[in-house]
Amino acid sequence: MFGAQGYESGSLREVAALAGISQAGLLHHFPNKVALLSAVLERRDEGASEETGRAEPGVHTLGALVEYARQSAFKPGEIELFAVLSAEATRPEHPANAYMRRRYQWITDIAVESLSAARDQGHLRPDADPLRLASQMFALWDGLQIQWLLKVNDVSVADGVEHFLDLHLVKPLRELLREVQAQR
Amino acid sequence: MFGAQGYESGSLREVAALAGISQAGLLHHFPNKVALLSAVLERRDEGASEETGRAEPGVHTLGALVEYARQSAFKPGEIELFAVLSAEATRPEHPANAYMRRRYQWITDIAVESLSAARDQGHLRPDADPLRLASQMFALWDGLQIQWLLKVNDVSVADGVEHFLDLHLVKPLRELLREVQAQR
Repeated sequence: MFGAQGYESGSLREVAALAGISQAGLLHHFPNKVALLSAVLERRDEGASEETGRAEPGVHTLGALVEYARQSAFKPGEIELFAVLSAEATRPEHPANAYMRRRYQWITDIAVESLSAARDQGHLRPDADPLRLASQMFALWDGLQIQWLLKVNDVSVADGVEHFLDLHLVKPLRELLREVQAQR
Repeated sequence: MFGAQGYESGSLREVAALAGISQAGLLHHFPNKVALLSAVLERRDEGASEETGRAEPGVHTLGALVEYARQSAFKPGEIELFAVLSAEATRPEHPANAYMRRRYQWITDIAVESLSAARDQGHLRPDADPLRLASQMFALWDGLQIQWLLKVNDVSVADGVEHFLDLHLVKPLRELLREVQAQR
């Protein structure tokens, strides 16, 4: 509902109707709209953490991020929710503003850790700056999702993110993943 | 108003109040919300066209795009409007959906033309694909605006876009612009 109509316009009454429960029943679990929104966002993050958290820092995590982008293409509703919300929530007074800022900090930290590990392992070009790269990778990801949702430029989000990473790695990500796998 | 509250929530009554005219007066100029939204978007595009349209295809236009990104940092309200709208308008039933798809097509065409010209002039790395690059450049631009509005990662949109272009040019954009200028 938030993805389709935005957080402001989405109504708790319609959420309750879609879930097949009464509005009182919904309010028992989520006392207000902010609580419901936070739960939706946290649930999505937990899913993402499970996908990428198992991988060790370095090219494995980068590979897991690309794989996560690839799987997300099967959940356009979630992508739409996030695209609308991350834009709406840029306003400091939006109820998800603090969450969204924390979230970008959190995903940036994960990516910086892995890009730094990749650099230490000689997988990243020496002139690449992990923080700038992490910020640009997620920016590219967000922007490609908009084009993908708009159905312009025949975009694949995962291919775009992978291609961007390849530019900064000493070899294509897939090749590095095969090499690291073979060394075990 | 649309930037601050989203298209769905923004009210014509408040727009009229902010403009210091009656709602009837506003409706005289813009019979409905879609008409007003379209006028806002077209006015912004005209501004962008003026900035970049004077430049000839090639590194000049690329430089003008970076300069436009740099100037946009002084108009955060416009950036917010576009960030929220481009996300909201990904839904096919949104009144700005057709406009937004046309717009991405239009800006992509401009960038492809200039990247192709840059390639023909030997300024672009031979392995760079103008269409992919154009799509990724605007995706990066859109995503960096979100981070900039959220005040995370200490982002400069213009620096990010310029750095991305530099990756694909045979020399940094600024250097190429100086060289092209000197040859005149």
